[in-house]
Amino acid sequence: MSYAEYTRRLSRIADIRNASALLQWDQETYLPPKGAHFRGQQLSTLSEIAHAEFTDPALGQLLNELLADATLSGEQRRNVELSREDYEKNKKYSADLVRRLSDATNKAFHSWIEARRQNAFFVFEADLAAMVALKKEEAGVLGYTRHPYDALLNEYEKGATVAGLDAVFGELLPRLKGLLDELLAKPSADDAFLKQHYDGDTQWQWSLRLMRDLGFDTEAGRQDRSEHPFSISFSPQDTRITTRIDEQDLGNMTWSTIHEVGHALYEQGLPVAQYGLPLGEAASLSIHESQSRLWENNVGRSLPFCRHYLPVLQGYFPGQLKGVTPEAFFAAVNKVQPSLIRTEADEVTYHFHVYIRYELEKALLEGTLSVKDIPAYWAEAYRKWLGITPPDDRQGALQDVHWSHGSFGYFPTYSLGSLYAAQFFATAEKELPGLPESIGRGETAALLGWLREQVHRHGRYFTSDDLCRQISAQSLSSDFFIGYVRQKYGLS
Amino acid sequence: MSYAEYTRRLSRIADIRNASALLQWDQETYLPPKGAHFRGQQLSTLSEIAHAEFTDPALGQLLNELLADATLSGEQRRNVELSREDYEKNKKYSADLVRRLSDATNKAFHSWIEARRQNAFFVFEADLAAMVALKKEEAGVLGYTRHPYDALLNEYEKGATVAGLDAVFGELLPRLKGLLDELLAKPSADDAFLKQHYDGDTQWQWSLRLMRDLGFDTEAGRQDRSEHPFSISFSPQDTRITTRIDEQDLGNMTWSTIHEVGHALYEQGLPVAQYGLPLGEAASLSIHESQSRLWENNVGRSLPFCRHYLPVLQGYFPGQLKGVTPEAFFAAVNKVQPSLIRTEADEVTYHFHVYIRYELEKALLEGTLSVKDIPAYWAEAYRKWLGITPPDDRQGALQDVHWSHGSFGYFPTYSLGSLYAAQFFATAEKELPGLPESIGRGETAALLGWLREQVHRHGRYFTSDDLCRQISAQSLSSDFFIGYVRQKYGLS
Repeated sequence: MSYAEYTRRLSRIADIRNASALLQWDQETYLPPKGAHFRGQQLSTLSEIAHAEFTDPALGQLLNELLADATLSGEQRRNVELSREDYEKNKKYSADLVRRLSDATNKAFHSWIEARRQNAFFVFEADLAAMVALKKEEAGVLGYTRHPYDALLNEYEKGATVAGLDAVFGELLPRLKGLLDELLAKPSADDAFLKQHYDGDTQWQWSLRLMRDLGFDTEAGRQDRSEHPFSISFSPQDTRITTRIDEQDLGNMTWSTIHEVGHALYEQGLPVAQYGLPLGEAASLSIHESQSRLWENNVGRSLPFCRHYLPVLQGYFPGQLKGVTPEAFFAAVNKVQPSLIRTEADEVTYHFHVYIRYELEKALLEGTLSVKDIPAYWAEAYRKWLGITPPDDRQGALQDVHWSHGSFGYFPTYSLGSLYAAQFFATAEKELPGLPESIGRGETAALLGWLREQVHRHGRYFTSDDLCRQISAQSLSSDFFIGYVRQKYGLS
Repeated sequence: MSYAEYTRRLSRIADIRNASALLQWDQETYLPPKGAHFRGQQLSTLSEIAHAEFTDPALGQLLNELLADATLSGEQRRNVELSREDYEKNKKYSADLVRRLSDATNKAFHSWIEARRQNAFFVFEADLAAMVALKKEEAGVLGYTRHPYDALLNEYEKGATVAGLDAVFGELLPRLKGLLDELLAKPSADDAFLKQHYDGDTQWQWSLRLMRDLGFDTEAGRQDRSEHPFSISFSPQDTRITTRIDEQDLGNMTWSTIHEVGHALYEQGLPVAQYGLPLGEAASLSIHESQSRLWENNVGRSLPFCRHYLPVLQGYFPGQLKGVTPEAFFAAVNKVQPSLIRTEADEVTYHFHVYIRYELEKALLEGTLSVKDIPAYWAEAYRKWLGITPPDDRQGALQDVHWSHGSFGYFPTYSLGSLYAAQFFATAEKELPGLPESIGRGETAALLGWLREQVHRHGRYFTSDDLCRQISAQSLSSDFFIGYVRQKYGLS
């Protein structure tokens, strides 16, 4: 009886949050400009209601009772444990703080849009500074022992800390820097044929074909266009992705679609019966990102994948791709080159973009960097790590939407996701004989089945680390990623 | 202080309802098929929450206090009075009834879709019968003195009763029947040129042009496609319309777009500062429909409008419209012909479609007709009034979505809307010298300004009848509509 009451309450909270998610999706895809003001207010109201329901003392009481109930199954118990954690965390936020965070996000998002339009960081400065102050307050409310940033990191990746991430990056970056130097010493790949005119409607048709090929259930989701590609879900039976078409670059939309499909396949694979409950949710952001990266990079930028899809693409774009060989195509889509825009970076330089943001956020939270100095910090960091500096703010500190959403501590999950992806894919290659050959025939259903089994069906049952150890018999190690990259580029 | 608390509460309820409206909009436009189940659940949850907030005894207490507050302005007092009425009505619904109505709607909507797919009324029968039983229960809960249908009619048009509508139709229908007989005795207009192939994308471009021309603010709204055209609003700054393109019929989309634009212009003209409050809402459904009909028919099917837009349309479709004269175009878009589908009916026969549904709903509510007998009743009524019978259910009793939404008592507002439109337009013609000539130049801003002033800016301040008397110095009379039709068709 009380477990049923618990699922009823959680399902109701999920309904509110999923309604909220639809309002966000619409905000990024179809909202007319003047609709922004009341949309922000509507989102704030739904946040408040969801928060009130998830901090209702009657729910806390119910969770305590259930924790003492010996008749629960293992899965039921795990749901209750995780909900209890969520409840405790939610209780730390006052209704007032929830409203202020929501309002600050609405304000910052619109001033970020305006700052990008004007290509002027200072337009964003005041609202970003207010957001940073609020995030410091939030870190205090959530609590931490060693570093205020720890409290925020933990929101996106349970257990993540500055100490832990310093160790990960401390091991990864020097190896990657050496690898990058090796690669830049070699002749650069020619990707000019990817940068011709590619008709937008044809690209759109190609992306729909690709979605279906990879196993995206188009009866349980759809693709739309937005300024910045993202994936979002309102239930495992309604998972949406967005894309952006660049008519001067075939690669942009293609691998962005594969990336978002990777996220969506995870969401579509979550157990429907656990709707609204922790076991119906993704394990963590880094594991979510492992799925998108695995499909985008380990599958989508592999030579077998290129071998299979080049002729398909030549069907869509016979003129532009005439005479291109699979090997040349593979080299082009894996071209390594220091660049200014994170989302367009290759697999190797990508982690420097993440690390720069990680260090920057850490300094903002510590108070050793102030918001007005971000552009200068940014220029110096890009010069140091990648040898280039942005010519303007749009290609610098205004490029990511994250801070305007109040998402401090989010970026590191991108790097963790790549590392998990490499480690999982290495395991899949061992457990699925002939995997590269299957990919070369355009057959990825077995791989999807393996991921469903290993990752998707578990929801939040396991932590990232437990899941990783269960799949690959060891904790996260950058060895797999480094090994994968060395092999891809033919480095000894 | 307490008026501010009142606006805070009402604004919050509006946020929830507008979120709900976005979920409905998405359901009709972009929702993937498998998403239907959880979407239904999400809509039910939001209904429950809005209902709980609007029946909170603290709100009732607050409204009572405000009614005794002599410092309120006239507008503030009117808001409070209307909210108090709404509160009393909401209180009549138990949370259980709200949930059951929402669940029944979700079920009936999907079985209606399925019944249409199979073209078989019996597929819809059980869920419709359950809905009718629930509506009888609802009528009992709402209360009535003379007829259970009165309780439901009052939901869509305050004060509407069977007695009142019997009087309206009793006066209108015989005159219209005589008029129809006169028209059918004349040679039929040739509209074959409207029924050629008209490219869908070009129709879409044309509809966007038309929207803008009529004053639809595209920064505060948008158009999408759906199976059945509708308009919906999430704030005066985000009002959306949908359309359906029939590539074999230019008229279908064109006048449907004008109709929905008419609704949207009303919503865009509601006072933003009254968001969430009664004075920020439309006066009534019939007044809403008066706006859509006025633009669709009194403006959009007038000879001056045809004179102006025929050359524009010939630019979009030079082949199909070559050699067509404005007079021939005007005759074609006003062709009178008994037909089976309400939404495609001409202005004259339209009211018979409405009357048939009105009589049918009345009989269902009285219990003198049972759901299983609807197709037979339908066939007989169409034969009697229009001399035709539907060959199948899709062209018969399955054509309208309304019953699947639980909307019994809604149809009569369509006829009332036409009558109000004719009466308002006759007044506008007196008060705006040269109105037909303006329309002939494609200039409708003055008319829109007049409607904003006379209708839109008042929100719900006046009842339909008060508004009508204020605008035209008399209550609703079908004389205006009859006079308008006789003049249009050159009848003495």
